[in-house]
Amino acid sequence: MRIKGKEYRTIWFENNVIKIIDQTKLPHQFVIKELKTVNDAINAIKVMEVRGAPLIGGTAAYGLALAVQENNDPEFIKNSSKELVQSRPTAINLKWAVDRMMKKLSGINSHQILDIALNEAKEICDEDEKFCENIGINGLKIIEEIYNKKRDTVNILTHCNAGWLATINWGTATSPIYHAHKKGIPLHVWVDETRPRNQGANLTSYELNEEEIPNTIIADNTGGILMQRGEVDMCIVGTDRTLSNGDVCNKIGTYLKALAAHDNNVPFYVALPSSTIDWDINDAKDIPIEERKSEELSHVEGVDENNEIKKVLIYPTKSKALNLAFDVTPAKYITGLITERGISEASFDGLKKLFK
Amino acid sequence: MRIKGKEYRTIWFENNVIKIIDQTKLPHQFVIKELKTVNDAINAIKVMEVRGAPLIGGTAAYGLALAVQENNDPEFIKNSSKELVQSRPTAINLKWAVDRMMKKLSGINSHQILDIALNEAKEICDEDEKFCENIGINGLKIIEEIYNKKRDTVNILTHCNAGWLATINWGTATSPIYHAHKKGIPLHVWVDETRPRNQGANLTSYELNEEEIPNTIIADNTGGILMQRGEVDMCIVGTDRTLSNGDVCNKIGTYLKALAAHDNNVPFYVALPSSTIDWDINDAKDIPIEERKSEELSHVEGVDENNEIKKVLIYPTKSKALNLAFDVTPAKYITGLITERGISEASFDGLKKLFK
Repeated sequence: MRIKGKEYRTIWFENNVIKIIDQTKLPHQFVIKELKTVNDAINAIKVMEVRGAPLIGGTAAYGLALAVQENNDPEFIKNSSKELVQSRPTAINLKWAVDRMMKKLSGINSHQILDIALNEAKEICDEDEKFCENIGINGLKIIEEIYNKKRDTVNILTHCNAGWLATINWGTATSPIYHAHKKGIPLHVWVDETRPRNQGANLTSYELNEEEIPNTIIADNTGGILMQRGEVDMCIVGTDRTLSNGDVCNKIGTYLKALAAHDNNVPFYVALPSSTIDWDINDAKDIPIEERKSEELSHVEGVDENNEIKKVLIYPTKSKALNLAFDVTPAKYITGLITERGISEASFDGLKKLFK
Repeated sequence: MRIKGKEYRTIWFENNVIKIIDQTKLPHQFVIKELKTVNDAINAIKVMEVRGAPLIGGTAAYGLALAVQENNDPEFIKNSSKELVQSRPTAINLKWAVDRMMKKLSGINSHQILDIALNEAKEICDEDEKFCENIGINGLKIIEEIYNKKRDTVNILTHCNAGWLATINWGTATSPIYHAHKKGIPLHVWVDETRPRNQGANLTSYELNEEEIPNTIIADNTGGILMQRGEVDMCIVGTDRTLSNGDVCNKIGTYLKALAAHDNNVPFYVALPSSTIDWDINDAKDIPIEERKSEELSHVEGVDENNEIKKVLIYPTKSKALNLAFDVTPAKYITGLITERGISEASFDGLKKLFK
């Protein structure tokens, strides 16, 4: 997708290094960063220079290729793969991508191994881009249907960033939006700012601006009254881990929006590539929910009146804060799952029909 | 209640001026501000140096006394009363307090009028303090019941600031908490930070810290998963306008917490003095929902590493934002209304039994 009119993917390999868009700097600065070692990749995932389940999968895949480039000793590669998987706990794509890489590399001799690793990482990324494009084509039908009934601007609410910046390209939740926009359907997106890291404001609104799609940022508290007032035609969000029973683990606060959508008969869709499906877990309690530093809540970064980036403490100095990064939305509140193979009911049977 | 160990009320009259705690400066600075004219009072309400439905009622009452002190011409007093009522749209106490003052002043001759105005304003404030104390005594029973069953720390979630800083003293939602704490019941409060103005973090956590009640600030997105995990025993919030049918208009986001409480069988209480009841409205659509400046969302104030107060822009420069200040929670999601006269069902009949 476009930034300042130029097409980008979120990650690419060039001159023996990975290049990424440093997402901790957006929206105030657009910085392309180089990752030279597997440790650079692990760190980029941990500090969230790259984030979003599909993109951290892609980064882990390329990160393992960097490990191979550094030292193709099988023990080093194996240890690197473990560290990559542990770099963040909740998104399942990380493990999925690393497992796929390790399977491909198993038993390969040292002469070919780097080329094979780089090819497989590229294939994982290309496939994610293709899957996200297909999610867009499938989700477009839902937006078209609403537009054909309403014949007026379609209002879509989204939470956090499941945009192209969270994937390789297109995004998951945003892909149907981009496809509808390209088709000329008039759209307006309500963007939850998504505390504490404000990725809705900083990334989703930013990328929608760059693609010239009308959007309005709202506090996370606001979606409920907008739905009560009939100002939301549908919700679309992403997912970090989709359980085999159709429950969806996504950015904290997703569950509250699903409850409001349910209470107001607003369709609530989750968009996902199949790489986010965890076939092994069907009880939300078994998902490791990441707890991040409380500083992400108590301190906020922005630009001051001199356009300099400043971090400020916004809480009382004595106060404690708890920073849980994800919650789980029960399948019963989800209208449908928009996948690369079509739209499925949020249930084991629905997912099985498409994927097993 | 206490700040740095010293007892305060939120508003008092001294040497011909109103004194208030400037709540826009908390938690980083504790500043007592003087209001000398009715225009000062109107401005303090508008820019939220004082806020919270009961406190803006008290400020409007004293503000009208300032008008009388400035110029006891009936036309000036009448115009001042209108401007006070219009200073903020949603909380009903403002109109309630001004109507009560005007009724008291009607037909009073110029010789006595200032004393009568000051006495009535003081009485409105004293009554609010007494009502809030009674809310605490009544709400304490609910907390005691939970504690007697659980025999462990009672976890209470609250949204925004319905603390003593929102009233004259004690608070509404916090009054049962303060009473339970004084009785030695072990408590822990989950404090929604309450974007966009962060009054949960800046005011509720601040005042709980000063009273040494354990509390943890959370993003507004977090209450849902805490309730799913069984980490919330009850919710208590305040209200800016209680409809005669039991619906409650309160700080934006209250509705989402009520939905989550309902979904997880967590009791959800609203604490209110009867001055917030609007007997004339029984349809949420008839409440004027205040829309405030989008700058409250896009810019955040805090202290930098030099302990200087700084305001920073946190959104992309091109982005728009919508800042609605309140939402409405339907009565069906409210377990009970904790009032100065007892606990009532959230319904017309429930309210009528106690108040009419």
